[in-house]
Amino acid sequence: MQNRIKVGIIGASGYAGAELVRLLINHNKVEIVSISSQSYIGQPLSHLYPTFFGVYDAVLESDLDVIEKADVIFASLPHGYCEKYASICDKQNKVFIDLGADFRLDQEVDYQNWYGLNYNEKELHSKQVYGLTEMNRDIIKDSKLIGNPGCYPTSILLGLYPVLKSKINKTNHFVIDSKSGTTGAGKSLSEATHFPRCNESFHPYKIGDHRHIPEIEQELSKMQGEQITVQFTPHLLPINRGIVSTIYVDLNDNVSKEDVYNAYKIYDNEYFIRVLNEGDVADLKFVKYSNFCDISLHYDKRLHKLVVVSCIDNMVKGAAGQAIQNMNIICGFDETEGLKIVAPAF
Amino acid sequence: MQNRIKVGIIGASGYAGAELVRLLINHNKVEIVSISSQSYIGQPLSHLYPTFFGVYDAVLESDLDVIEKADVIFASLPHGYCEKYASICDKQNKVFIDLGADFRLDQEVDYQNWYGLNYNEKELHSKQVYGLTEMNRDIIKDSKLIGNPGCYPTSILLGLYPVLKSKINKTNHFVIDSKSGTTGAGKSLSEATHFPRCNESFHPYKIGDHRHIPEIEQELSKMQGEQITVQFTPHLLPINRGIVSTIYVDLNDNVSKEDVYNAYKIYDNEYFIRVLNEGDVADLKFVKYSNFCDISLHYDKRLHKLVVVSCIDNMVKGAAGQAIQNMNIICGFDETEGLKIVAPAF
Amino acid sequence: MQNRIKVGIIGASGYAGAELVRLLINHNKVEIVSISSQSYIGQPLSHLYPTFFGVYDAVLESDLDVIEKADVIFASLPHGYCEKYASICDKQNKVFIDLGADFRLDQEVDYQNWYGLNYNEKELHSKQVYGLTEMNRDIIKDSKLIGNPGCYPTSILLGLYPVLKSKINKTNHFVIDSKSGTTGAGKSLSEATHFPRCNESFHPYKIGDHRHIPEIEQELSKMQGEQITVQFTPHLLPINRGIVSTIYVDLNDNVSKEDVYNAYKIYDNEYFIRVLNEGDVADLKFVKYSNFCDISLHYDKRLHKLVVVSCIDNMVKGAAGQAIQNMNIICGFDETEGLKIVAPAF
Amino acid sequence: MQNRIKVGIIGASGYAGAELVRLLINHNKVEIVSISSQSYIGQPLSHLYPTFFGVYDAVLESDLDVIEKADVIFASLPHGYCEKYASICDKQNKVFIDLGADFRLDQEVDYQNWYGLNYNEKELHSKQVYGLTEMNRDIIKDSKLIGNPGCYPTSILLGLYPVLKSKINKTNHFVIDSKSGTTGAGKSLSEATHFPRCNESFHPYKIGDHRHIPEIEQELSKMQGEQITVQFTPHLLPINRGIVSTIYVDLNDNVSKEDVYNAYKIYDNEYFIRVLNEGDVADLKFVKYSNFCDISLHYDKRLHKLVVVSCIDNMVKGAAGQAIQNMNIICGFDETEGLKIVAPAF
Repeated sequence: MQNRIKVGIIGASGYAGAELVRLLINHNKVEIVSISSQSYIGQPLSHLYPTFFGVYDAVLESDLDVIEKADVIFASLPHGYCEKYASICDKQNKVFIDLGADFRLDQEVDYQNWYGLNYNEKELHSKQVYGLTEMNRDIIKDSKLIGNPGCYPTSILLGLYPVLKSKINKTNHFVIDSKSGTTGAGKSLSEATHFPRCNESFHPYKIGDHRHIPEIEQELSKMQGEQITVQFTPHLLPINRGIVSTIYVDLNDNVSKEDVYNAYKIYDNEYFIRVLNEGDVADLKFVKYSNFCDISLHYDKRLHKLVVVSCIDNMVKGAAGQAIQNMNIICGFDETEGLKIVAPAF
Repeated sequence: MQNRIKVGIIGASGYAGAELVRLLINHNKVEIVSISSQSYIGQPLSHLYPTFFGVYDAVLESDLDVIEKADVIFASLPHGYCEKYASICDKQNKVFIDLGADFRLDQEVDYQNWYGLNYNEKELHSKQVYGLTEMNRDIIKDSKLIGNPGCYPTSILLGLYPVLKSKINKTNHFVIDSKSGTTGAGKSLSEATHFPRCNESFHPYKIGDHRHIPEIEQELSKMQGEQITVQFTPHLLPINRGIVSTIYVDLNDNVSKEDVYNAYKIYDNEYFIRVLNEGDVADLKFVKYSNFCDISLHYDKRLHKLVVVSCIDNMVKGAAGQAIQNMNIICGFDETEGLKIVAPAF
Repeated sequence: MQNRIKVGIIGASGYAGAELVRLLINHNKVEIVSISSQSYIGQPLSHLYPTFFGVYDAVLESDLDVIEKADVIFASLPHGYCEKYASICDKQNKVFIDLGADFRLDQEVDYQNWYGLNYNEKELHSKQVYGLTEMNRDIIKDSKLIGNPGCYPTSILLGLYPVLKSKINKTNHFVIDSKSGTTGAGKSLSEATHFPRCNESFHPYKIGDHRHIPEIEQELSKMQGEQITVQFTPHLLPINRGIVSTIYVDLNDNVSKEDVYNAYKIYDNEYFIRVLNEGDVADLKFVKYSNFCDISLHYDKRLHKLVVVSCIDNMVKGAAGQAIQNMNIICGFDETEGLKIVAPAF
Repeated sequence: MQNRIKVGIIGASGYAGAELVRLLINHNKVEIVSISSQSYIGQPLSHLYPTFFGVYDAVLESDLDVIEKADVIFASLPHGYCEKYASICDKQNKVFIDLGADFRLDQEVDYQNWYGLNYNEKELHSKQVYGLTEMNRDIIKDSKLIGNPGCYPTSILLGLYPVLKSKINKTNHFVIDSKSGTTGAGKSLSEATHFPRCNESFHPYKIGDHRHIPEIEQELSKMQGEQITVQFTPHLLPINRGIVSTIYVDLNDNVSKEDVYNAYKIYDNEYFIRVLNEGDVADLKFVKYSNFCDISLHYDKRLHKLVVVSCIDNMVKGAAGQAIQNMNIICGFDETEGLKIVAPAF
């Protein structure tokens, strides 16, 4: 394993961290040299997640162990914890890929308003790159500090990019109705994810108040070159994995259905983005456990409006998978390395 | 049981029909005198639904048996089958409550466009009353021909009625994103409801093309007194019961949050409609197996917009329960008779 | 409501307690005069379980409030808490129905061995009656202190009673493989019932070590008049409700299939026990939310052995429903009062 | 891809066939040269299973196309269809791995009794090898005709092998209580797997009458060198994947707990069999989508009995995965090639 890149995972005991481990142990170009946790130091990860028993029995170390041993550091921590680690990596010229929210927002004021914290190292934040791979591949390549996108934003931004890029939308406001599996709520126990409560249940939450809103509006606005607003309603699906975003688009008067499909041809060479054939409908089932984003387009002739359906696995393309995709780019690997997983058909 | 009203159910082998049986066997004012099926004549209903074993072992008869024996006839059949039965009942002065789509649309042209059939007895259709109980109680009382509302329309119309009644909406177009459990698809086997396909899956269907659209637009337009259009997207939830409709409303500029809550006070005396307290979120979990419609209101101060969340059990308030509620009114019973079911808490 | 019996529920914030509330608010002979909780005093029960919102908004009081106000007291608490309350009720001549484990075991040594506690008031325990209704109806009638059976024991004892009563078993040892929905684990959050962990999962637990074992062996031994042992393995089903017990019986050599079915005719007049027709298989689906126990019998001609499948709803027949059934008997009501619920067919 | 082995799949439109495709497209030593179906000839497999869209869009051909083009042929068909194909392959010296039941039973009389058909080519059947990899590795290596084990038998045989091999069992009869996810029922629509019927349901089926019984008894008897009988009860779990077999073992009087664990050390070098540490419990969750068989041992000191819990993914180790494992052996590849999948942790 001498020639493999040394990678480490801060926060491996959380769901995104554990998913990184699961994907990276089958990645042929890297070696996991250290994993860390704040609550479970000294325990094997396989105690928390028995799936790793006999396959990957490494013991959780400290966050600083990870930084010391690895050259590429993934971090999956609650917001506010990563700035100091990213700063150390910056000084040591190491790659830092943050799966949390600390390096996603360009404007400190947004971070203050939505997360209640300041940017302590403004210089550091000037180096951050928003890791939406398909959009920012060119600048990711030369970056060492990645703010990996949130799960909802990934599904929404990939779904809307061709619309905004082609400027076929009539208004600069979008209604976005998203639904996510329960892994999005993470490993912590909660009433909402207590099985008897969650099972056979369905409801929205944090309506108009979810922290992914500024991230979505920031990136959509950059795509369009104008200020975009979104009415965003996330819902909790009683399943484990996956996000479906149903996005409502008012089309410009002169736009035809063909124009819509043409706009999405921009994805023709993207391995991980599949624009479905007309008549087919995207389903989170067929992206589950994979790094694909499936998109279906539904033109309503009666109302001359468009519905875009965009599906991802929230833990893969919406977190660990996209982070690895970004690492592949930074390290010069094939972008699909370790990510050519096909969703189970059933 | 001499003084009980004689009721019968055409199409008792289907889901809505079987749910009628389940509710009516515990209704203190009626007696089920006949149930019918086209495919299972001669079989006990408990062969199809073992829940009835030992409790209600009646045998399925013919549709005409039902009409002959009962004074109040419920019918749950595919569209196009009920006109002839309703016509017989009309002549015999019997009550006919159709849970299907044959007596919901005021304009024959809508029935032609969306269902591909004509109204053969136009006189008969002039007598039909749209059975959305809380709106049309006064005319239901004196009617003998009820077009019981569709499940999606029930959740949406109850959710939006106070908005349109108070005219606090800015536009006459609404985005409505609905999600339904699988019982909405009925008893017939299908790929979409094959367990390994459906489980851990989620997707929209019939986007902008669902037959409930003309019904929704017709009734919303009547409420507002103007033509309303809706962008309606139903989704299939991998659970058994319940509908959540997430409804997006642009508010008039001068409307305050208080105005919104005041508008919904119109429901203060409605037993089956519960407007939740501010901060609470409607969840289909807590209406499941009950006749309640739970509504929560979410004012987005940042964008001055409103999200209305409306939940029902698709088989109860969205079908069998509302049909019984209508029967209770027509027969002069307490409107809640046989329907005071509380959803299981878990 | 003057003539109604005053009932109260200690521990109404737990699952069995809340289920008692749900069933009792539709019981025509009783009035709930007080409900209590140790952790949520002063809060409406509907805050914990929104299903009660607008229907039953009573506030949780103290345990002693319940005892003071009610004449029939149900208690659903962890073991060790009920002896003192039962003692007060005994002195005040009130009925005390314990849904926990404090009055189920005849021998203090079993309570010591399996629960680690002593019987402090031995006199009190001499008055306890094991509330398996169908077996002990005659002594329940005259008792004021009921130890309501555990959920697993209820399914197993009702399933095996005819075998032991008819002495058609060859051995005094049984293999019992049971599976329960997650409500059996109660309201407390746990790793095992965290949705992403529990969903799409299945596993046994407490193999050979579950506290229901002494209760099962005690009652089976009484039925047979000999010491019975059981190898009992409970499993956690990723669903909300219901227990299936699959029970393996070695038949005496000269027993025929007809003898087996004849043995179960002892249940012919039991409303809540349904012995299915040969060829049908019991399914928890069709007892869910109801007080029924469905039993199917499967004679293996090749091996001359019997499999008994016994299904109940763990929260109803396995807890709150059977407790009410016992109350009905003690109070002289129709045994089915408030319990004629039919399981949803879908 | 010139040096890759040419493989083909007969019956690729079924669940086991599709799972073979999913696993083999990421196998580095083979190339899928043809897939077939009887009902969907000419259609891309991705029409049936959209997960393959854009990844593997091959069109379904005829069964004979597969045999002609491939050197290693997998077949997944209903019983009775494979003898003729195996015969052709035998003559052409091609490898034939049957995932169905046609080459599992040594005695034609068992095939006649349980499947109702004869062995037409008795010579051919003398060449068949039962493909339980860990047991029969040595004879698989030199075989070209593999009867791949059934899903239930795989879980049971791997679970019991060390017991019978060490002869620590007291009796030659076992109670085996198994539970399987719905994919075991395959792609065909059925009442039992209609979502509203299956969801939140649980029940046994084919009690004492399942066709896997002769296969289980045959192989257990070979292990022990004596005739073994099993009381086998399969149950349908309302989840997609996985089998749990709970196996009840009477231990010889002089056997200690240590003897039990020592018996299972026979698996110490088996990559795909994980004997869990004492105190841990096997869960299908952690073998799902993987080729692992997880086994936990539960010694009941009170009764001196043993419970063995054995878990596999029914579609992988119980079908496609084990078939590929056998192919790897026959072709001289590393036995784990293409199968080093780790179950998702959530």
